[in-house]
Amino acid sequence: MNNNRFLVTYQITGDEVDALARAQIICFEQTVEVSEELINSDFIREQIVGQLIEFKTITEQCFNVTISYAIDTTAFEITQLLNVIFGNTSIKTHIKVVNIQFPSTLLDYFSGPRFGVQGLREKVQITHKPLLCTALKPMGKSATELATLAYQFALGGVDIIKDDHGLTNQSFCPYEERVKACVAAVAKANDKTGKNCIYVPNITAPVTEIEKRVTYAKRQGAGGLLVAPGLTGFDTMRAIAESEFIDLPLISHPALLGSMVTSQTNGFAHSVLFATLQRLAGADATIYPNYGGRFGFSREECDAIATACSAPLGNYPAIFPTPGGGMTLDKVPDMQQLYGENVIFLIGGALYAHSPDLVENVRYFLNLVGRT
Amino acid sequence: MNNNRFLVTYQITGDEVDALARAQIICFEQTVEVSEELINSDFIREQIVGQLIEFKTITEQCFNVTISYAIDTTAFEITQLLNVIFGNTSIKTHIKVVNIQFPSTLLDYFSGPRFGVQGLREKVQITHKPLLCTALKPMGKSATELATLAYQFALGGVDIIKDDHGLTNQSFCPYEERVKACVAAVAKANDKTGKNCIYVPNITAPVTEIEKRVTYAKRQGAGGLLVAPGLTGFDTMRAIAESEFIDLPLISHPALLGSMVTSQTNGFAHSVLFATLQRLAGADATIYPNYGGRFGFSREECDAIATACSAPLGNYPAIFPTPGGGMTLDKVPDMQQLYGENVIFLIGGALYAHSPDLVENVRYFLNLVGRT
Repeated sequence: MNNNRFLVTYQITGDEVDALARAQIICFEQTVEVSEELINSDFIREQIVGQLIEFKTITEQCFNVTISYAIDTTAFEITQLLNVIFGNTSIKTHIKVVNIQFPSTLLDYFSGPRFGVQGLREKVQITHKPLLCTALKPMGKSATELATLAYQFALGGVDIIKDDHGLTNQSFCPYEERVKACVAAVAKANDKTGKNCIYVPNITAPVTEIEKRVTYAKRQGAGGLLVAPGLTGFDTMRAIAESEFIDLPLISHPALLGSMVTSQTNGFAHSVLFATLQRLAGADATIYPNYGGRFGFSREECDAIATACSAPLGNYPAIFPTPGGGMTLDKVPDMQQLYGENVIFLIGGALYAHSPDLVENVRYFLNLVGRT
Repeated sequence: MNNNRFLVTYQITGDEVDALARAQIICFEQTVEVSEELINSDFIREQIVGQLIEFKTITEQCFNVTISYAIDTTAFEITQLLNVIFGNTSIKTHIKVVNIQFPSTLLDYFSGPRFGVQGLREKVQITHKPLLCTALKPMGKSATELATLAYQFALGGVDIIKDDHGLTNQSFCPYEERVKACVAAVAKANDKTGKNCIYVPNITAPVTEIEKRVTYAKRQGAGGLLVAPGLTGFDTMRAIAESEFIDLPLISHPALLGSMVTSQTNGFAHSVLFATLQRLAGADATIYPNYGGRFGFSREECDAIATACSAPLGNYPAIFPTPGGGMTLDKVPDMQQLYGENVIFLIGGALYAHSPDLVENVRYFLNLVGRT
């Protein structure tokens, strides 16, 4: 790969002549936004305009076209990088981003995941087998009530306890009160169990509030941070991942990103949106709905996400696929076959519903994934 | 409308029994994220869970369901408000947000558009008839070259000159150099013409850079700011709109938002995404692709956007629909009929291509829209 350029593969649906024409239009649309006749500079024509590198027939009505862009067009900013990849073209139908290949020369401008699989395992001191994560809910409970739940989950041996992503700073459960109470509850349980469960507050917030929330979480002793880049923008996650003071693992939540993957003919492939771009922006674990749950992801799409979480990507570490929901006794063998051991299983409602004894429920699910 | 709740109308496609079941699931999914059996608090059941207000048959396979949510669930944050509206449900197919109704009690937490139609008209001193906007391009030109273009456009009498949205801080055209040169070029032309053309730099940038760029633009004398909320997050626009120091009009660009409107059965209605949410987050003008151009918006979708730009919305002012592209001689009568006079016509490539004389080209297009 040319170190000065990165590659985006678009899947274009339609007939071949039209697909080729659309591919050529993308080269201009994503960069210069003028037609070829208006370009009177060799530098712009040769360096700035995207270059059609490959045009590959998938089926009679489906083509994968790979376009290379100069890394300089991104200004080495996540915001502008996303814009070059799909900014204006996102508004067109029948064009989908299915793969991106970044050279290290571009990746090295960002710090990537700070912890990754190994770093997060060290944090919770579980070196093998899947990790178990749960969520504090429902919205409407007070900080004290949520802390009581956190205590029981930690006592049962869950590894990661995150806020439900809808908990922010509501009047009935203020952020600082919740973080303080939950950090204390989990610490108290850890004292009893000798384990290293971490509490991960949701820091998805207005841009003018995030730094305060993140700093508070760090000072109180939170063990990680939950952020929804679909709500804050991907670059906010990158900024936290690169912050010197905030050395905490980041767990990414898919809220509001759905429209970017639900269409077969627009948006991003699941693996690009929920793995490649997450690693680029510094997530250490990426939450997405597991196959067979209440959302419609297929087993193949989940497999592609998990694979892209550990595929080579410059010097970036592998991160944890974190499938949510759908964890039932009968599905465990298949899920273990699919995900192997480097996975975080996120179990929300099922962990509450299994029996009234939350401590026992955690043990049941730990058992299910081979942790005893 | 109940002042403590806001209303979201979802269009659900499928058969009636399934649509009703999905509507009920949305009430839980967007708030508590647990099933009804797990809720043991009257407060949560009655206040926090969404309430199905209306279930309306549109066709045999299409239903509009209106759900009310407590405004308190939003914590009065744009990020969490978007999450309540469509966070997890965005990941489901066959559900689309087609309308939102906010009470003033919620809207008053945000400042809304600072300028709106009237404020922006005062800024450029054009009280009637459509405004004309163009973009500096292509990417790859130097700051000096772009400033030369800006000078000619301003001399011709264009009202607003914005950066192409792909210009950020590339090495071949650094942000500060460009802003300084373009502000000066436009001021020089204004001195000659006696007009009040404004230069609007693109401040879409990493979260750690935006404040610096915005402040620089303000200090240099830029007349407005261009931001792409699909890249930065909507709340970034809100923060700038509310900033005391940065009292400049905001023009919103649709980059990366496309996947949220291209599907018939997921995402947002055009009017919600490109008007209602833009006003909520403080845009004074909202760019979107005009019908009949190189993107696929229909005349009806553009009409709905324009209508929602000036529909009642608390105490917020009307904002400018800013359709881009597609401005040709034969379409002008129909566009004038659709948009009336409170519109900004964004003309990029056509203004460059019409003839080699950019000054004359501006005059030609001003004439087209009845400005002489």
